[in-house]
Amino acid sequence: MGKVYLIGAGPGAADLITLRGARLLALADAVLYDALVQPELLEMAKPNAQMIAVGKRCRELSTDQRFINRALVEAAHRHAVVVRLKGGDPMIFGRAQEEIAALQAAGIEYEIVPGITSALAAAAELGVSLTRRGVSRNVVFVTPRVGENESASDWAQSVLAADTAVLYMASGQAAEISAALMQRGMNGSTPAAIISNASKPDMQKVYTTLAQLPDVVNQVGAPALILLGDVLHQQAQKRELVRQAAGL
Amino acid sequence: MGKVYLIGAGPGAADLITLRGARLLALADAVLYDALVQPELLEMAKPNAQMIAVGKRCRELSTDQRFINRALVEAAHRHAVVVRLKGGDPMIFGRAQEEIAALQAAGIEYEIVPGITSALAAAAELGVSLTRRGVSRNVVFVTPRVGENESASDWAQSVLAADTAVLYMASGQAAEISAALMQRGMNGSTPAAIISNASKPDMQKVYTTLAQLPDVVNQVGAPALILLGDVLHQQAQKRELVRQAAGL
Repeated sequence: MGKVYLIGAGPGAADLITLRGARLLALADAVLYDALVQPELLEMAKPNAQMIAVGKRCRELSTDQRFINRALVEAAHRHAVVVRLKGGDPMIFGRAQEEIAALQAAGIEYEIVPGITSALAAAAELGVSLTRRGVSRNVVFVTPRVGENESASDWAQSVLAADTAVLYMASGQAAEISAALMQRGMNGSTPAAIISNASKPDMQKVYTTLAQLPDVVNQVGAPALILLGDVLHQQAQKRELVRQAAGL
Repeated sequence: MGKVYLIGAGPGAADLITLRGARLLALADAVLYDALVQPELLEMAKPNAQMIAVGKRCRELSTDQRFINRALVEAAHRHAVVVRLKGGDPMIFGRAQEEIAALQAAGIEYEIVPGITSALAAAAELGVSLTRRGVSRNVVFVTPRVGENESASDWAQSVLAADTAVLYMASGQAAEISAALMQRGMNGSTPAAIISNASKPDMQKVYTTLAQLPDVVNQVGAPALILLGDVLHQQAQKRELVRQAAGL
């Protein structure tokens, strides 16, 4: 029976995978990968490795997760080294626990190799530290998306209580997010940024405010991260000056 | 004038740096590194690179940060490629903003290369996803430590509002953290974990509960991360069974 490595592929740029991830990818007999994983990364696998595309880009159904779990277990029965390559970090919005549970139930050995989650790539692209002495002593990673058969969790509360917030899988709901947070007392002038494809050549970013999120969200492609918090103050201020100078 | 790369060295294991980080490290003419960075990583630099140790492991004074800023600017005046290697990710509790500001003020080009922050390495070691459908739709990274001349920020509020919390630079204050959170209504039976040196051979971890944090914190070395939340339920439950079986 083989061993399965759940590896974080990182945010997109192929060279933002870890050395360990790249080494194991080059050793793998079989690679199961997400739609979010870049083709350049797949080229790091050995030529005769079995490459298995799993997962959809968005709105995956729970049946798909069961299919992935089964495919993982089957691959471990046939191959010595199996890599499960997941976008970002496996342990942040990666549904790794469901795959781990399936491997445990089947008695298959596994190991997790962390990856750069997209919030960190976004911070690097923006040049904005998510924490900052005197401004932000915490950062929350949160999604407003609710899964099938799940009750609406109180995502807004965690954003309101945090100094900095990074919202994953959120740009499709920019208007609802902006309205919900302002209704609960968050200042509409709170600095914000929207960024898609952080670390990739087609990266797009825009600085704005909480109130103006719905108006500018279409300036960047989807999926995108939304960042909120005073750590973005300087950038948001610069944009506001440009906006005013342009008479917008 | 040279260019400065602020690179996340990752959580400790040398092979958890990114491919990009390793490539730039091998190119650097000068490397400024933290005490938290492993010697194995420094060996990736070219033999004639100037290696400059900066920063203290804990409780660095603000004068030290000014020294680092000055050393960075000076290095960029003398070398084409300067690497500033920081433990974890530069943008999470890394004081990168102060170094970025110093570089901007001096007109020096810079680029940020993200790294694996220790919360992600901890999740990988524990085998516990920080988010999980139906259990946790957000995770906060927070420190209860307050810097010099800083007012006490409301770290407890962000923990109380989050589904999962990872507390950085916190293990020295385990008793205060446990008391403060329970006083504000968090259940003493909330599953917890303490982990030090995640990803390194001397990794230590213990599963516990919020109430028992102060009793077990000395079972792992410092500095350590504290994790709180229902995503740890299964592991905390197993430990409780073992504890009861042993008559503790």
